[in-house]
Amino acid sequence: MKAKSMSLYSSMRTGQSQKQGMAPGTVMYTGERKLEHVTITSHLFNREILEEKSIDVTALHRPDEGEKLWINVEGLHDTVLIETFGERFNLHPLTLEDIASIHQRPKLELYDSYVYVVLRMIYVKEGKLENEQLSLILGDNFVLSFQEIPGDVFEPIRKRLQNPQSRIRKLGADFLFYALIDVLVDAYFGVLEHFGDQLESLEEDIIEGNSKQIMMQLRRLRHELLVLRKGIWPVRDVINSMMRDAPSLLSKDVLLYLRDVHDHGVQATDGLESLRDLQASLHDFYLSQLSYRMNEVMKVLTIISTIFIPLSFLVGVYGMNFDHMPELHWLFSYPLLWLIMLSTAGGMLYYFWKKDWF
Amino acid sequence: MKAKSMSLYSSMRTGQSQKQGMAPGTVMYTGERKLEHVTITSHLFNREILEEKSIDVTALHRPDEGEKLWINVEGLHDTVLIETFGERFNLHPLTLEDIASIHQRPKLELYDSYVYVVLRMIYVKEGKLENEQLSLILGDNFVLSFQEIPGDVFEPIRKRLQNPQSRIRKLGADFLFYALIDVLVDAYFGVLEHFGDQLESLEEDIIEGNSKQIMMQLRRLRHELLVLRKGIWPVRDVINSMMRDAPSLLSKDVLLYLRDVHDHGVQATDGLESLRDLQASLHDFYLSQLSYRMNEVMKVLTIISTIFIPLSFLVGVYGMNFDHMPELHWLFSYPLLWLIMLSTAGGMLYYFWKKDWF
Amino acid sequence: MKAKSMSLYSSMRTGQSQKQGMAPGTVMYTGERKLEHVTITSHLFNREILEEKSIDVTALHRPDEGEKLWINVEGLHDTVLIETFGERFNLHPLTLEDIASIHQRPKLELYDSYVYVVLRMIYVKEGKLENEQLSLILGDNFVLSFQEIPGDVFEPIRKRLQNPQSRIRKLGADFLFYALIDVLVDAYFGVLEHFGDQLESLEEDIIEGNSKQIMMQLRRLRHELLVLRKGIWPVRDVINSMMRDAPSLLSKDVLLYLRDVHDHGVQATDGLESLRDLQASLHDFYLSQLSYRMNEVMKVLTIISTIFIPLSFLVGVYGMNFDHMPELHWLFSYPLLWLIMLSTAGGMLYYFWKKDWF
Amino acid sequence: MKAKSMSLYSSMRTGQSQKQGMAPGTVMYTGERKLEHVTITSHLFNREILEEKSIDVTALHRPDEGEKLWINVEGLHDTVLIETFGERFNLHPLTLEDIASIHQRPKLELYDSYVYVVLRMIYVKEGKLENEQLSLILGDNFVLSFQEIPGDVFEPIRKRLQNPQSRIRKLGADFLFYALIDVLVDAYFGVLEHFGDQLESLEEDIIEGNSKQIMMQLRRLRHELLVLRKGIWPVRDVINSMMRDAPSLLSKDVLLYLRDVHDHGVQATDGLESLRDLQASLHDFYLSQLSYRMNEVMKVLTIISTIFIPLSFLVGVYGMNFDHMPELHWLFSYPLLWLIMLSTAGGMLYYFWKKDWF
Amino acid sequence: MKAKSMSLYSSMRTGQSQKQGMAPGTVMYTGERKLEHVTITSHLFNREILEEKSIDVTALHRPDEGEKLWINVEGLHDTVLIETFGERFNLHPLTLEDIASIHQRPKLELYDSYVYVVLRMIYVKEGKLENEQLSLILGDNFVLSFQEIPGDVFEPIRKRLQNPQSRIRKLGADFLFYALIDVLVDAYFGVLEHFGDQLESLEEDIIEGNSKQIMMQLRRLRHELLVLRKGIWPVRDVINSMMRDAPSLLSKDVLLYLRDVHDHGVQATDGLESLRDLQASLHDFYLSQLSYRMNEVMKVLTIISTIFIPLSFLVGVYGMNFDHMPELHWLFSYPLLWLIMLSTAGGMLYYFWKKDWF
Repeated sequence: MKAKSMSLYSSMRTGQSQKQGMAPGTVMYTGERKLEHVTITSHLFNREILEEKSIDVTALHRPDEGEKLWINVEGLHDTVLIETFGERFNLHPLTLEDIASIHQRPKLELYDSYVYVVLRMIYVKEGKLENEQLSLILGDNFVLSFQEIPGDVFEPIRKRLQNPQSRIRKLGADFLFYALIDVLVDAYFGVLEHFGDQLESLEEDIIEGNSKQIMMQLRRLRHELLVLRKGIWPVRDVINSMMRDAPSLLSKDVLLYLRDVHDHGVQATDGLESLRDLQASLHDFYLSQLSYRMNEVMKVLTIISTIFIPLSFLVGVYGMNFDHMPELHWLFSYPLLWLIMLSTAGGMLYYFWKKDWF
Repeated sequence: MKAKSMSLYSSMRTGQSQKQGMAPGTVMYTGERKLEHVTITSHLFNREILEEKSIDVTALHRPDEGEKLWINVEGLHDTVLIETFGERFNLHPLTLEDIASIHQRPKLELYDSYVYVVLRMIYVKEGKLENEQLSLILGDNFVLSFQEIPGDVFEPIRKRLQNPQSRIRKLGADFLFYALIDVLVDAYFGVLEHFGDQLESLEEDIIEGNSKQIMMQLRRLRHELLVLRKGIWPVRDVINSMMRDAPSLLSKDVLLYLRDVHDHGVQATDGLESLRDLQASLHDFYLSQLSYRMNEVMKVLTIISTIFIPLSFLVGVYGMNFDHMPELHWLFSYPLLWLIMLSTAGGMLYYFWKKDWF
Repeated sequence: MKAKSMSLYSSMRTGQSQKQGMAPGTVMYTGERKLEHVTITSHLFNREILEEKSIDVTALHRPDEGEKLWINVEGLHDTVLIETFGERFNLHPLTLEDIASIHQRPKLELYDSYVYVVLRMIYVKEGKLENEQLSLILGDNFVLSFQEIPGDVFEPIRKRLQNPQSRIRKLGADFLFYALIDVLVDAYFGVLEHFGDQLESLEEDIIEGNSKQIMMQLRRLRHELLVLRKGIWPVRDVINSMMRDAPSLLSKDVLLYLRDVHDHGVQATDGLESLRDLQASLHDFYLSQLSYRMNEVMKVLTIISTIFIPLSFLVGVYGMNFDHMPELHWLFSYPLLWLIMLSTAGGMLYYFWKKDWF
Repeated sequence: MKAKSMSLYSSMRTGQSQKQGMAPGTVMYTGERKLEHVTITSHLFNREILEEKSIDVTALHRPDEGEKLWINVEGLHDTVLIETFGERFNLHPLTLEDIASIHQRPKLELYDSYVYVVLRMIYVKEGKLENEQLSLILGDNFVLSFQEIPGDVFEPIRKRLQNPQSRIRKLGADFLFYALIDVLVDAYFGVLEHFGDQLESLEEDIIEGNSKQIMMQLRRLRHELLVLRKGIWPVRDVINSMMRDAPSLLSKDVLLYLRDVHDHGVQATDGLESLRDLQASLHDFYLSQLSYRMNEVMKVLTIISTIFIPLSFLVGVYGMNFDHMPELHWLFSYPLLWLIMLSTAGGMLYYFWKKDWF
Repeated sequence: MKAKSMSLYSSMRTGQSQKQGMAPGTVMYTGERKLEHVTITSHLFNREILEEKSIDVTALHRPDEGEKLWINVEGLHDTVLIETFGERFNLHPLTLEDIASIHQRPKLELYDSYVYVVLRMIYVKEGKLENEQLSLILGDNFVLSFQEIPGDVFEPIRKRLQNPQSRIRKLGADFLFYALIDVLVDAYFGVLEHFGDQLESLEEDIIEGNSKQIMMQLRRLRHELLVLRKGIWPVRDVINSMMRDAPSLLSKDVLLYLRDVHDHGVQATDGLESLRDLQASLHDFYLSQLSYRMNEVMKVLTIISTIFIPLSFLVGVYGMNFDHMPELHWLFSYPLLWLIMLSTAGGMLYYFWKKDWF
């Protein structure tokens, strides 16, 4: 439980505060996931060829005319490597800083020779939610992608690259750039389903009364949806401004496809808001269940007390030791008292039953 | 109950996540309602003629000069058929993809030779709510409509088509296009009444205290209204942008009529928001009823306890076995005690009655 | 109570759904208030003359040059009559449809030869709230007003018309048009006072604890304020767009006066929002009163129980039948026990009093 | 209490409804504060001279060239006087109407020869909140101010006027106009402190449990803050549009100073919103205190009952009259029972103490 | 506690109200922190030289050509000193007034020869939150910074100034101006972590049930976050309008860096809103914990009462003194009664356990 609750507040620790006072453009990794080994994968391709290999930082160079290059980097703690990229591909120091600062808000930045996009790559892998920052850079004939840890949603793209007939092979680097954003946004729907499932199982727990830790889980879900929201909402704006400021790097055809991604972004946002509404309604439901059960308990107490308190009074009366209590000496007063008590209890039960108390 | 609650979360399963990584323009049916047979109905008409028939995919062709064509498709799982449409009527791959993806948000897309509109067709059929996606395509002299399942709100349009004097027969394909949207939006009012009725019967249940499952039903209604909202709200924007970007395909006269549909859309939205407010106020009402009843129960407990606890104490006093209790030996102490107890009880009842406790 | 609660949901029945599938421009009365007789009153006037009479539909004609005409119609179920108006005054079919559809949202529509305005006429008549749709049409020298039932807020206008020195007689039809809207908006303030009074009397009921049906009444008020809001809010937009799109039919002078009406509209809206806030705060107040009373009840129970339960235990002790209980045989143990019990009770009461429990 | 609660709703009585149907431009005082005597104070000044006197309506005239005039009127019920002003200073009938209608929303109106501003003058005088309407009119070389009752926040202005070196004496009428608005807005901060103090003392009452009428006072504060809000919020818009539509009557220098007033207006609005938040949080705090105390009371009941109910059962057992109860005849059973009962009670107390119940 | 609660309302005392009626441009310190000694630190530097010294007001002068000057002032109560600055650096009286008024909202003001920015410098120093106003003035070759008390976040800047290779030394005064804002905004992240920690420790207190003063602390946090919000939110607007109105004083390069600060401002705002959400959710959590515990207490009461009340009735029955009660004389009725009572109690416990009551 401790661990759970800490994760709520750990999102407050963005590492941003460590950078206080550093000169701008200082490349510093603000995350905690330091990999042993940074992996760099290069895809060099055009209509005819496809060269896929794991490369070293020394092998970095821009593609030749007529070729397109996609370099994917997994692991961001090696700031020297990132600076080497900056040198080879002519990237602005602020871009390099942003790549390594892994708590960026999704945003688009236009530079003279390239477009820089930061997005959150959120996906479900083996039932676990992964959330990492993806930096995408689109140059005239290359795409660079930087992610924090191995594992991503780009597998289908890699498969489609194998197929020489696919549009990715035929069209320019901008189409690859679009395709990467497209699969990234599509992965959001899986995440939404993941949360939908969690809410559903939580609802079952509430209905069945397994109410241990429900409140904690509701809070955790609320917070996770908030974190998700900060990742998903800005995507629409990013794509919108990508289309509006239509950089010369994007072909008209790709712009049409981007409109489609934008629609998916809007749809994901809608779904997210529905989930937030479901969470809120589940919270209300839980509280009303709690007080419903409380009411049930109270009713039992009331019925038992209300029936027996008067009866106890009656038996108390005939436990008194007055010298002159004529009833004590009658022959049938004991069975008569039982009769009176049973009918009183019966009458009360009938009254409560009429009043729908149980 | 299980089934009900599942439907809340099933809206999270849009099928969108299955498409993750597919090449854009891939036509894939994301729904679950696979019909045995896709029905294609064709209306070929102008002022003089009206030819209505069920056709085969092979019979698809554009209308001749001076004729207008309306083709209505029921059933979307046959992706080959949709692609045939794309070929004959020259539709963009993204349009075809959107037709088969049945969880689209209502939207308008302008292409060079046609207008593509996605709307939700929501209506009440035999007391049951139907909610399906309708894709409408307006070309220069044809209208295509794609729906997921048989059954729709277009019957009146079909009747009006029979009448050679009707405006639909006289005016262009754009008027038919408008008329289809018009009946679709008008059907929303029936849906609102349907929900109004449900809220009303729920309120009666609350008043009469039939409070089993009330909370579940309130949640279900809240969620259904949210789903409705996602279908109804964007309609205004769709029609607005239709009018603003006034595509050359719409005549000036039809634009005037669209303003009318827009007003109806606004009115439906208003009605929907009222329903949401009514739902929220019913929720509050239910909770306050619950605690009101609880209070009633507690009052009874209090009154009974408060009266009998002191009396029981009194009778306990005279049940003690002290050797020296002079009262025990007085002649009238027993009836006197009864007198004291009855007047104490009476005084308390009077006090509670004055205090409005019952 | 049933009747009240039904009225909450009846506003969902706008009659709009009956019109589903009808051709646009079909004039159909969507209300329920069918008068026996439709009254048409005509005011023909200019600086010199004033001719006021009840006319027949056959007598309808446009005014001559230099004359101004105001025709007021009470009763909308006679669709033939409305169509006759359309013919004589050259109105668009959609305008006629809107006149008879009495659940329109307030709106302004500009046509080539006239301005069409729909507003809600809401006023208090003999302590009862009346809410009906008013359609106003301003032509170059005539004003048409259509209302659902007899009785309106136009009496002062009729009086001012009698006075040949009044601005209404001197200025054009547009000034009469403005004056009608002005009195209609001014009537809203009476309605706000009406609701203010209802909230005030409800508050008194809550304070005095006459809490029967309070929750129902709060809900009804909330809903009525919502209905009111839908009528009053759009007025500002209507007048705003009237001024902005400054149709040639409105003189510059009248525009200045419209600015004044606009201010009143804003003020009415402010007042309405205050009422809604008051309603919400009254709701909170009611709930807190409920739980405050509940607390009071619980405290009494606690005090009585807490005092007598230990005492009952004590008297129980000396009611035991052990052979060897020395206290039973002491001479003063009975009065001593009373002393102990009285001082225990007194001590407890003092403790509770110190703790501010009563 | 009655008086308090009435004041909540009395703000709904704006007197606006009495004006229903009156011709526009009718000057009618809508307030209730009719003074015996209207006071008119005139300041005629320039760099050299300052003539301050109480004048009569007959002495009203525009200032000569090179002189500036400030006329302050206290008391608005004398409509003839207001109309005289209108005549002498060439004011529009609608302006005169607005001066006398004392429930205007703050607003700016530009006329050809003057600027008309309505603001709320809200200030604390001897611990009491005063709230009246101030109408300001800026002509080319005169400023007119109309207030409802004697007493205002302009004393510092009058003092600065005495000083021939002050900017007010040196600069034009527009600077005086600015200075009046400036002190009026500055007075808002005193009002905010006044409410801050009230909230603070209310909080102390809640903590110390003096909870009589707390709820009523919270509601009254909420409502008063709402009334304040309606007066303070629009000030920013008024000054904004004053600067934007930069009327030729305002010099460039004064515009710079107005920017400063605008900042103060924003700051006052911020402070007001903080107060509203504090009020809401105090409301929550009060409710949670109520239920906290309730919990405390319930715990005492529970502890007492839980301890004594089992003990009472035990002593009841040995009060039974069975012939064959061996314990009754043992020598030490009575002291043994006491031992058992004391250790049971002790054990329970220890359990409750461990569970943090008291 | 008193001190804490006072601090909530003390933010209402801005000192603004003391200035009521003062002539604009009057420099008056509105704070309470009067230092004994005002410290003025001067950094005169360019690529080659760096002269850092503590100076006297008499030594104030503008830098020579080719030199850049940063003067930092700690302590604002010496209004004569501020006026001397105004004279030497040609500042507008309103700027001087704003420097000394320490409750300004963050804002940007453009004057002809300089830019004036007000920001809140909020940072954590030795576990304590500091919040003071920072005024920054950027002239063509100088930067002035005014703060209320000693201690700031500028230490890293002073270190970077020592390094002749740093951009601060190389670039113009505008870069220093940017760098100061940059470290100030970066310090916000430390503040957010500080609050995150407080919320976390508060959550632990709630879970462990140390619920003394929780409500007070939640309220204080809510209010402090609100105060923080007023300081942090406007930063984005300030930087935005700095970039938009791109004053000639900022070089193109610095504008690019400002975009980066803007992103950080947005991120800080996001973080702040998350904290507010966490605070709200913690509030809900606390309330639900309270009622959960209450429920637990009530259940214990119910179980004990429900078991012993019927048993007490039974033993009461056999404490009656009727002459004819045959059970009293049976040999095994006493052990039999014990059997009945134990099995009743056992049955009830089983029933409650089945119902999940404990």
